[in-house]
Amino acid sequence: MFQILSLKNGLDNVKGFYSGSTNVGLRKPNSDGSIDGDVSFIRSDTLCDVTARFTTNRFAAAPIKHFLKYPVNFQTDFILINAKNANAMTGQKGVEDIEELFKILKSKIQITNPIMSSTGVIGYRLPLEKISSAFDKFDFNAKNSNDTARAIMTTDSFKKEICFKITLDDGSSFHIAAIAKGAGMINPAMATMLCFIVTDANIPKSDMDELLEIAVDNSFNRISVDGDTSTNDSVFLLSNRQSGAYDKDAFSQALKTITFELAMMILRDGEGATKTVAFEVKGALSDEDAKKASIALSNSLLVKTALFGEDPNWGRIASTIGASGIECDEEKLTIYYDELLIYSTKTPVDDDWEEKAYKIMKQPSFHITCDLGLGNGTFTSYGCDLSYDYVKINAEYRT
Amino acid sequence: MFQILSLKNGLDNVKGFYSGSTNVGLRKPNSDGSIDGDVSFIRSDTLCDVTARFTTNRFAAAPIKHFLKYPVNFQTDFILINAKNANAMTGQKGVEDIEELFKILKSKIQITNPIMSSTGVIGYRLPLEKISSAFDKFDFNAKNSNDTARAIMTTDSFKKEICFKITLDDGSSFHIAAIAKGAGMINPAMATMLCFIVTDANIPKSDMDELLEIAVDNSFNRISVDGDTSTNDSVFLLSNRQSGAYDKDAFSQALKTITFELAMMILRDGEGATKTVAFEVKGALSDEDAKKASIALSNSLLVKTALFGEDPNWGRIASTIGASGIECDEEKLTIYYDELLIYSTKTPVDDDWEEKAYKIMKQPSFHITCDLGLGNGTFTSYGCDLSYDYVKINAEYRT
Repeated sequence: MFQILSLKNGLDNVKGFYSGSTNVGLRKPNSDGSIDGDVSFIRSDTLCDVTARFTTNRFAAAPIKHFLKYPVNFQTDFILINAKNANAMTGQKGVEDIEELFKILKSKIQITNPIMSSTGVIGYRLPLEKISSAFDKFDFNAKNSNDTARAIMTTDSFKKEICFKITLDDGSSFHIAAIAKGAGMINPAMATMLCFIVTDANIPKSDMDELLEIAVDNSFNRISVDGDTSTNDSVFLLSNRQSGAYDKDAFSQALKTITFELAMMILRDGEGATKTVAFEVKGALSDEDAKKASIALSNSLLVKTALFGEDPNWGRIASTIGASGIECDEEKLTIYYDELLIYSTKTPVDDDWEEKAYKIMKQPSFHITCDLGLGNGTFTSYGCDLSYDYVKINAEYRT
Repeated sequence: MFQILSLKNGLDNVKGFYSGSTNVGLRKPNSDGSIDGDVSFIRSDTLCDVTARFTTNRFAAAPIKHFLKYPVNFQTDFILINAKNANAMTGQKGVEDIEELFKILKSKIQITNPIMSSTGVIGYRLPLEKISSAFDKFDFNAKNSNDTARAIMTTDSFKKEICFKITLDDGSSFHIAAIAKGAGMINPAMATMLCFIVTDANIPKSDMDELLEIAVDNSFNRISVDGDTSTNDSVFLLSNRQSGAYDKDAFSQALKTITFELAMMILRDGEGATKTVAFEVKGALSDEDAKKASIALSNSLLVKTALFGEDPNWGRIASTIGASGIECDEEKLTIYYDELLIYSTKTPVDDDWEEKAYKIMKQPSFHITCDLGLGNGTFTSYGCDLSYDYVKINAEYRT
């Protein structure tokens, strides 16, 4: 048994971790005159084990290539992060730029095996002079999770930050905290999302690998804003073990909750999204079939625009399942919006189903369940609607 | 050698074919007070061979199930078409409704093995009384291709109608004509599109099967408005052989041109589309790889919104190729907008590429070429941009 307590101020709670940010001119001031950082760092005062999950995009950005040059099971104590420039499609030069930055950084602070992470526009070399000017401005002993969470944002409209304190039965305790960014290009195969999770739990490296994979598969890999997969998607888990405390079940539970909550925040912050929907497909011949249909639903433009229009047009749901390439049968299918039966060939649907469905669709969040009636396969993914603002944000971003 | 001449008035030119339409109250009058038909027919005064290509959607609509109940190589002389109701997800009852309609129709006119085709909203039984009321209103000897082409429209903003007269070296000639509808849910695996092609060529049935498959694969299966695949997509080719003339090369050429032109009309009429783009992928390891990347490009929301915003953001092109799951290498990739080099790691790009690219993107139609530099695989698909109006049309359709 264990207790999970939610704390404010994110990363600041975790023993031995420091974070902060500064503005070096990559990002303009906000419309209200305030200025967010554009270069930031997360560091630990002792070496950390590190586990990461990266994008499946074949054009993985330079920071990911740089990370993968380290030997397996290397340890690190420093993450450098910049916004506004993805350092993607920059070839070998992009990796050399990171090495150059770290050479300068190491003249300012003693660090081992630093990691970089970038987000922003694709196809431009990093502005080395600007970014390295941050190294003299950083307070390396800052505990400033809030500003760091803001400094990694791109089209995000709010910062994403969580911390849990887990207390075990013997009274010992540890922390897991995370910050994340992401609001567009979000796809079940990750997203243009960055997520930095740090912990002081005394967790073995093998558990880090195992539990992060499960947590990511059940969170970031189940959300979709627009079906694209970026060059920079990364989730990092760093552990410095400074609390000395650990319990696998408790850690697993807390990590799953943190990643799921962050994924839902990213979905709610989906570019122009006005509502989020869980697409549960069950009764499929296999989990694989259920996954195909569920992800087809969360990616379908016709479903997404019907959600925005609050139109209980279940024909688009059925058509999308039929087109997803899985085994299905219109005589066996049933569709529910929350608890309301919408389609069945066997059970009569309420006469006023349309009015009831309309009320359900007015909610900021609801559940669509499609039971294929064929087997035990099941999968749930999470999507959002497609609004005018999605088009506006993405037609105007960059230029 | 042969000559191809384009004629007005579509189906009316083809020997022995008649078509017409009427309004039975399924469709409201247009905003200018004019009234389009909602039930229509195409018939031949002699029996026709018929070849069809249907949707890959597993929930194929009742008219398709009805067609497939006929023996292979059956002949027909009548197609009944309705708009505003797809007769999809209506189960066995949906097929019985068609049989009921044909029982009534056969009491009005002598016909053999009639076919039905429907488009509209999913999930409602056909209004039999209204539709059968058309049978007393039809002029079965009408040659009214124009009205028929309008009567099959749904969200289309213009009718789609083509006729070619092909004259062979010996002076003999035949016609191929077609009408089509489609503007939304268009996907490389067909579309909510209906296409009716009729010919008086003396074509063997085996050539009809072979040539229609090739023509559809090179036209309707290469266009994408929004990546969805409907329950009702159908392409029919009917031949009554009344001209007595035929040449395989000439027929193949004319059929390919007709289907390609109709596909481009559907794309230009894509819901809310302001421009169309050819996505040519070459230099892939295989044609299959090239196809995956090309179709990913024409379906990508980020690419489509960048096209609408006329933003020469090639990073989205590169990222989409990288995410498409094919073999690729950023050092070998080159990207062109029309003839303008946009991205290469080897050849320097023009200093003012951005300004030039912007001019290219202003055109109503242009070409994006991605050369992967790996092999000989090639594929071209055709897409359009995503505008505010797409969201508006699809959020408001039906309700």
